[in-house]
Amino acid sequence: MKKTSKEKPLILITNDDGVTAPGILNLVEAVKGLGKIVVVAPDKPQSGMGHAITIGSLLRLHKITIAGADEAYACTGTPVDCVKLAVDKVLKRKPDLCLSGINHGANHSINVIYSGTMSAAVEAAIESIPSVGFSLLDFSIDANFTGAKKYARTIVEKLIKSKLDKHLILNVNIPAIPLNNIKGMKICRQAYAKYVEDFVERFDPHGKKYFWLTGDFVNFDKGKDTDVWALNHNFVSIVPVQFDLTNYDLKNKLQKSWKNLF
Amino acid sequence: MKKTSKEKPLILITNDDGVTAPGILNLVEAVKGLGKIVVVAPDKPQSGMGHAITIGSLLRLHKITIAGADEAYACTGTPVDCVKLAVDKVLKRKPDLCLSGINHGANHSINVIYSGTMSAAVEAAIESIPSVGFSLLDFSIDANFTGAKKYARTIVEKLIKSKLDKHLILNVNIPAIPLNNIKGMKICRQAYAKYVEDFVERFDPHGKKYFWLTGDFVNFDKGKDTDVWALNHNFVSIVPVQFDLTNYDLKNKLQKSWKNLF
Repeated sequence: MKKTSKEKPLILITNDDGVTAPGILNLVEAVKGLGKIVVVAPDKPQSGMGHAITIGSLLRLHKITIAGADEAYACTGTPVDCVKLAVDKVLKRKPDLCLSGINHGANHSINVIYSGTMSAAVEAAIESIPSVGFSLLDFSIDANFTGAKKYARTIVEKLIKSKLDKHLILNVNIPAIPLNNIKGMKICRQAYAKYVEDFVERFDPHGKKYFWLTGDFVNFDKGKDTDVWALNHNFVSIVPVQFDLTNYDLKNKLQKSWKNLF
Repeated sequence: MKKTSKEKPLILITNDDGVTAPGILNLVEAVKGLGKIVVVAPDKPQSGMGHAITIGSLLRLHKITIAGADEAYACTGTPVDCVKLAVDKVLKRKPDLCLSGINHGANHSINVIYSGTMSAAVEAAIESIPSVGFSLLDFSIDANFTGAKKYARTIVEKLIKSKLDKHLILNVNIPAIPLNNIKGMKICRQAYAKYVEDFVERFDPHGKKYFWLTGDFVNFDKGKDTDVWALNHNFVSIVPVQFDLTNYDLKNKLQKSWKNLF
């Protein structure tokens, strides 16, 4: 990790559940002492915001206090806005690491695409800041973060000691079981899974229909090298993620089969 | 493409600029006669929404009329919500193709990640609907869609005749030049480019600071096989896209170098 020899690592922390969520407070606590910690996180829940950015409205930053953080700000924008604002306006130098989470709820498999937590991590990596998103498989506000904290610290300690790819992104999910029951960590691929939507239809007092998004998570992937498999078998799953979305197999195929089109 | 022998292809059309944008009206016109066309698109601009979904508030659908479309609806949600609602509540069967756009403005390189247009296409492919996002490199409301329409129709005609991967996603960008000056199409990879942020700081009448997101687009990629290169050389760029974000190279590397951690 690049920094001047005696300087502590600069760690940017964000999330999508908002700056008051127990998950982010636990993440700050988990990495205490490993570097200078600056928090820039949404001022309200931003789950499911994916890689949304705020173009048509203004953004504000409010200085706040978080136990264990050297500096902290609540931002009115999305998780991706938080990373952009932190890099451009809050931090004096590029952070050595960006940590996002600990998310309340799973971000394995296809969730990586909808997740504000993971999109913040992806945004950091686009900005050449190695990043990790942490998620605990428990949506509850009272979730027990003991296992998540232990593994978060282990991973961050490892990263700080390593020479990192500046575009490194890790999607770390932690099973919601007692620490002693976690069998260890597995490097995995993203499972092919999706939500089968089932919008709930309701009618307002004026008789007009509206919808609520709901759906069942279905894992179509039988592989034993996936994040869903690892989590189902009591492992912490680590999926290395990238922001080059090119489908190279299809690119090669189309370059041959579409030849006559060009 | 899977459909009963005499049935016309069912084409779902959406976008992120909203249902009244010239881009989507031009897309409907471009593919006229190629299938049964159903439009489900946002009722207002949703640029930069990425893969955001609406969890905490309700969604509504309003039936509208669009010249050339067999059915059309304005939806209060994001582009991804539109695809989810269309598949679950509007369409009687899975569409054969989903088209998104024509976006007012580029969605090449890293823009694919921020773009509501492309996220709608990605969502369709997650739902096993082959999909294409179209973008014209002109933000103007008065943009000239002649070239974009011609190439959109050529591509859709080709897809309808082909046996398609159900997860196919194409990110098509069209240069904003007269049709005769377009040199053809190129299958490309996503260029490594990013925005260098430069938030504008202002003060409200009460003396409180706020920010507007702005930034300069910078292409760091010197490759001649990228979408940015193709567009700069007057080609239509076609990047095949995938929703498996796993970084397999890094996965293999970490499985070796992190062995002692597990």
